[in-house]
Amino acid sequence: MNALNIAEYTQTLGLQAKAASFLMARAPAAAKAAALRALARLLREGVEELAAANAQDLERARAAGLAEPMVDRLKLTPRVIETCAQGCEQLAAMPDIIGEIQGMQQQPSGIRVGRMRVPIGVFGMIYESRPNVTIEAASLSIKSGNAAILRGGSEAIDSNRALARLVTQALQEAGLPAHAVQLVETTDRAAVGQLIAMPQYVDVIIPRGGKGLIERISAEAKVPVIKHLDGNCHTYVDDPVDIDMAVKVADNAKTNKYSPCNASEGLLVARGVAGEFLPRIGSIYAAKGVQMRGCPEALAILRGVPGAELAEATEQDWGEEYLAPIISIKVVAGVDEAIAHINRYGSHHTDAILTRDHLHAQQFLRDVDSASCMVNASTRFADGFEYGLGAEIGISTDKFHARGPVGIEGLTSLKWVVLGEGDVRA
Amino acid sequence: MNALNIAEYTQTLGLQAKAASFLMARAPAAAKAAALRALARLLREGVEELAAANAQDLERARAAGLAEPMVDRLKLTPRVIETCAQGCEQLAAMPDIIGEIQGMQQQPSGIRVGRMRVPIGVFGMIYESRPNVTIEAASLSIKSGNAAILRGGSEAIDSNRALARLVTQALQEAGLPAHAVQLVETTDRAAVGQLIAMPQYVDVIIPRGGKGLIERISAEAKVPVIKHLDGNCHTYVDDPVDIDMAVKVADNAKTNKYSPCNASEGLLVARGVAGEFLPRIGSIYAAKGVQMRGCPEALAILRGVPGAELAEATEQDWGEEYLAPIISIKVVAGVDEAIAHINRYGSHHTDAILTRDHLHAQQFLRDVDSASCMVNASTRFADGFEYGLGAEIGISTDKFHARGPVGIEGLTSLKWVVLGEGDVRA
Repeated sequence: MNALNIAEYTQTLGLQAKAASFLMARAPAAAKAAALRALARLLREGVEELAAANAQDLERARAAGLAEPMVDRLKLTPRVIETCAQGCEQLAAMPDIIGEIQGMQQQPSGIRVGRMRVPIGVFGMIYESRPNVTIEAASLSIKSGNAAILRGGSEAIDSNRALARLVTQALQEAGLPAHAVQLVETTDRAAVGQLIAMPQYVDVIIPRGGKGLIERISAEAKVPVIKHLDGNCHTYVDDPVDIDMAVKVADNAKTNKYSPCNASEGLLVARGVAGEFLPRIGSIYAAKGVQMRGCPEALAILRGVPGAELAEATEQDWGEEYLAPIISIKVVAGVDEAIAHINRYGSHHTDAILTRDHLHAQQFLRDVDSASCMVNASTRFADGFEYGLGAEIGISTDKFHARGPVGIEGLTSLKWVVLGEGDVRA
Repeated sequence: MNALNIAEYTQTLGLQAKAASFLMARAPAAAKAAALRALARLLREGVEELAAANAQDLERARAAGLAEPMVDRLKLTPRVIETCAQGCEQLAAMPDIIGEIQGMQQQPSGIRVGRMRVPIGVFGMIYESRPNVTIEAASLSIKSGNAAILRGGSEAIDSNRALARLVTQALQEAGLPAHAVQLVETTDRAAVGQLIAMPQYVDVIIPRGGKGLIERISAEAKVPVIKHLDGNCHTYVDDPVDIDMAVKVADNAKTNKYSPCNASEGLLVARGVAGEFLPRIGSIYAAKGVQMRGCPEALAILRGVPGAELAEATEQDWGEEYLAPIISIKVVAGVDEAIAHINRYGSHHTDAILTRDHLHAQQFLRDVDSASCMVNASTRFADGFEYGLGAEIGISTDKFHARGPVGIEGLTSLKWVVLGEGDVRA
């Protein structure tokens, strides 16, 4: 397609999505659940067909010399497909929140006023590699009564096409509009530029991928973006604290997995407990090969730990999202300094205090300006499934609209409903 | 100031606002209420001082040949000031929603997860002429625990400066940071361009004024905007309907006031009741001098009304926000056509159905894609005070974040709170 054709094609997708969104907004809960169950069935029945499509993507990726971890992320194994199918079934079984009416109260004038939860309309999802995101986004879109336009990575185009065919079939089986979920079939990048600049058709854009992709989309979008940039999360070990508990949680927050955005990248330790706490966590990190980049005071204590890989933390370290076996460590005077450090250097994603002090806990929860604030828990819990959302379309580090893990509710809005009996305004 | 100085000045305002926002976020409810009560007192004590400042604005406006209705909007009369003072007292008496925790539930892992309502941070308000908006915005900002940067119209700069001094004094009396509410003291337009492009300091922009201003700000802003564009509202008279009730409400929806955004600009009438309803509403509109722009079918009926000022509606009329004694009138087959018309031509602001039919009422509430959907009530009720919000910072015609009338809650966000007892992720 040339530029003109791509513009026309994307506009057509938008027009079709908008039309489908009105039908989806009034679709019965039972039809949406039926579509999700049908999709689960079709995914299981289609394992071989999907494997064949996926093989084309894998072959192309290997021929292009893609690194093996990247090729891995492309794979649509029977296990990945089964996880997708189970996700659809779980969504089907969840309560349908569309149409819920909140807080209907009579006002002094006599009118009754409340708010009704309705779908946002059309969302555009832009993502990279993993083809299972196609099913995650499609199923969340169906459950939330929205229409979706999906733009996956060009490296997964054959897998995504095969998956999108199953989605269309499931929608049709359930009597829902086929255009409720559409895949952008061209791999031309110009389509992304079009998709994020059609406020008349697209109500919100959700990018998932590397920081570069997300920054570019945020800068260029003409519609609202639910975006997730850095996850520079902190664990603060307060004084007083149960040292055993603090060691266990600080270990988990860093080493449970290094790549997720909710892994802790910074460890702050109250001066009063640093002498006891740091050698213990230090020897665990040393054993697991985690490099510790500390302030001078932390390093002075950690130098006694056998095998510790130590470095002096620079100003840049405090703001860094390592996504690797590295952690920055700073000794602080107490909760005030910890909160100030987090609000200055953190990315407003997830931060935890480990403490026995009730007032410190309350202060931390109130004053830390992050999407998730935790007491005595691992930052690794910041996740839609762990929070009971049943599904997660992404994690927002913005404060506007949805914040933190975004589930079905983040894809809805509340409109006002007014019931009168012929009431007029004085 | 030159461009460089304005950039520096606006950055300083932003930096000060951000610092103040952290202090405001943890300010006790009692301190915020005390500041609002102090502001009410200072406004009443300052009536003469404010009149003197306002006189300078009025003199300048008249010298510049401003039309008298525009000059009227600038006036800071004792009555306007008393209304502002009462508004502050009402806000002081309202419950404080900051810190509220919602839905704390234990998850399968053992952690308890809920959401805490917190201020957004810093909002920028850009508005025209009426200086009382300075007090409305300042008081809402104080109550909601945010910091605000206010940019009023240059024609009201002396009044706004005098009002802002009182706000600062009230904040200081209550022990709150003086920078929690700042007025942009320069009338240079470049300051607006700066204000809407500082995502590091400003979390949301709220423009209030003409459509031109709002479109320009939306197009250029680098931060989220709570915006209100058109109010092309509809009243649909269904079949079956109580004709007396329909006449009363359709009259009020159009003629109660012509200038507000929630006045009905379009009247849709079901064919089955048009013969009975249209002559009755037509004679009322005729008596009040409201021009009726109808479809051929409506005009055929209305031609029998003595004194009716009639015109044929063009395609453009269906999408028009008149804000004047003009109404478009269309005869439709029934509720399906009415909903389709509203979703196509309306501005997603406020639309009402007048009906006795329960299923039609439910269908209208569900399928009309507007911020406010009403049954048997005048569209004029779409207002923060009428909805029980206690105050209104604006009306949003967007779906993202706040929708419809925006009160204190629209200036807050919900962050996640996680309480554990040393929980770690498996």
